[in-house]
Amino acid sequence: MRFTFLGTSAGTPTRRRNVTGLALSCDESRDWYLVDCGEATQHQLLASPYSLAKLRAIFITHVHGDHCYGLPGLIASANMSGRTAPLTICAPDGIEQFIRAAFLYTDISELRFPLEFVRSDATEFHFEDAQVAVTATALSHRVPCFAYRFEERPPRHLLEEKLDTRAVPRGPLWNQLQRGEDVTLDDGRVVPASEMTADAWPPRSIIVGGDNDRPELLEDAMRRSQVLVHEATFSEDVLAKVGPKYMHSTAAMVAKSAARSELPNLLLTHFSQRYRLGDGDHVEHSIEDLRREAQQHYTGTLFMAKDLETYQILRDGKVVPLTG
Amino acid sequence: MRFTFLGTSAGTPTRRRNVTGLALSCDESRDWYLVDCGEATQHQLLASPYSLAKLRAIFITHVHGDHCYGLPGLIASANMSGRTAPLTICAPDGIEQFIRAAFLYTDISELRFPLEFVRSDATEFHFEDAQVAVTATALSHRVPCFAYRFEERPPRHLLEEKLDTRAVPRGPLWNQLQRGEDVTLDDGRVVPASEMTADAWPPRSIIVGGDNDRPELLEDAMRRSQVLVHEATFSEDVLAKVGPKYMHSTAAMVAKSAARSELPNLLLTHFSQRYRLGDGDHVEHSIEDLRREAQQHYTGTLFMAKDLETYQILRDGKVVPLTG
Repeated sequence: MRFTFLGTSAGTPTRRRNVTGLALSCDESRDWYLVDCGEATQHQLLASPYSLAKLRAIFITHVHGDHCYGLPGLIASANMSGRTAPLTICAPDGIEQFIRAAFLYTDISELRFPLEFVRSDATEFHFEDAQVAVTATALSHRVPCFAYRFEERPPRHLLEEKLDTRAVPRGPLWNQLQRGEDVTLDDGRVVPASEMTADAWPPRSIIVGGDNDRPELLEDAMRRSQVLVHEATFSEDVLAKVGPKYMHSTAAMVAKSAARSELPNLLLTHFSQRYRLGDGDHVEHSIEDLRREAQQHYTGTLFMAKDLETYQILRDGKVVPLTG
Repeated sequence: MRFTFLGTSAGTPTRRRNVTGLALSCDESRDWYLVDCGEATQHQLLASPYSLAKLRAIFITHVHGDHCYGLPGLIASANMSGRTAPLTICAPDGIEQFIRAAFLYTDISELRFPLEFVRSDATEFHFEDAQVAVTATALSHRVPCFAYRFEERPPRHLLEEKLDTRAVPRGPLWNQLQRGEDVTLDDGRVVPASEMTADAWPPRSIIVGGDNDRPELLEDAMRRSQVLVHEATFSEDVLAKVGPKYMHSTAAMVAKSAARSELPNLLLTHFSQRYRLGDGDHVEHSIEDLRREAQQHYTGTLFMAKDLETYQILRDGKVVPLTG
């Protein structure tokens, strides 16, 4: 699995960082998923390998503009580029209305592809396709906000010993089982695919959080995942000054929760625009300050997200940056 | 007067060109005006000298997304940056509804500054402040669409001979007249400022058009203006292939109208994304092709717009690019 940060700035863009968006794909597949879609997400995609034609689904964490104002333009561009495949949008209440209103008032009466809306604030929310299974966890923010946990669905390999024990003849029936279809033998016995196959490798999973001032809400999910991408809008000293009203996390808060959950890989993002990429005397607030704050509480693998940086989750669950 | 192209691509952004937006200001003033606001206009502004705090008014040509999807984000960012000055938005029907719906569904219940909407599709539309007077001309497009003509309001200088003839005493009364206020003399005579002062230089004017397949609609306005910024989405050969349904102009169509109107300065923009910045064998469609097409019909000063390029209209009406 790999993922690319399309924006790492909280609230407003800066000259070098866009507002929130993250692209996620499964290994070699060109199909991909988008989590959040701040303004100019489609612009960032032009500088990435992800194609609008191959976008399978969009997941929006919450209705704040820096997480969703890129939706009308991205969908309109997909439409103009001739996309016909359906597009699923999983989002809390408000996002479907926002998109429909945008199209109503801007002369888009019909798209060339169906938009399928799924309410991610519904208790039974669950998204699944051939590649991933996605669930949501409610967070704590000024509006309903969610984290999405993506678990990959690895290819299944055949358990040959079991097939021999059950005397399933090699050939088309094995292929059928590998595709996940149960088979019926000549003697009438039904052989379920789930028992005759196993994941080719342990499924990897990643949580991508929205805005949240209680990272501990994700500890259960973290214990079952290799990776967390979470906001760290402020450092502790800045939070002490601005106060809790914006309902964001500090680097320390997230680091402590990740440490308690024994999470192996933590990626911090959504930095207030006051934090600069550089370090040194001329920079009052630096993203390096946030890194140092997190490192005081967390000894796992830690990355500070940068726009257009891509990371790979290896099959053993390690996370490595991909260069170039 | 000076103006900066914030985007020059039609419909969708490309890697090197954003969708439509143009910033306009009067000489030394830091106050400025925005014409159209495609997605990521606020991002382009971060790379320009224009500040959201000094934006006086926005003029939207029509409701298509590549001309207005940047509005919610730009206004939200102005709000987050602490702006309190009122902001006027002149636009046809639909834009106010789009903005209000965007804010309704994305948790913006109140801004820190008043938004004042003016319907530019009203027959009596007229905008005026201390710096500019703006009128609109209806164009021909798939939705109601307008060109905006900005005429500067130069400082007034005193006509000393006339003041002496009318025996207006030097001092405070002269200052009052220069500020445009009529004065009443001790003997009861009223002296109107309009008769005692004149423009310090002939007012410059620029037309910024929206999407339009009938540039001849602007010929009257062109005869009274120094500069036209107009779309040239296609070349003649491409229009012949795609057909007239998109209702856009070719470079030749605009050039012919400008020539007929004896317009001194023409700037073409809003190029279909198929046109590339480069030239040469490896580029099938180049913006240089559009330039050559226009030059066949127009011998005035011609520029092909580039993102973030700034032009100055000199006091004599000449247009020159500003470098750096």
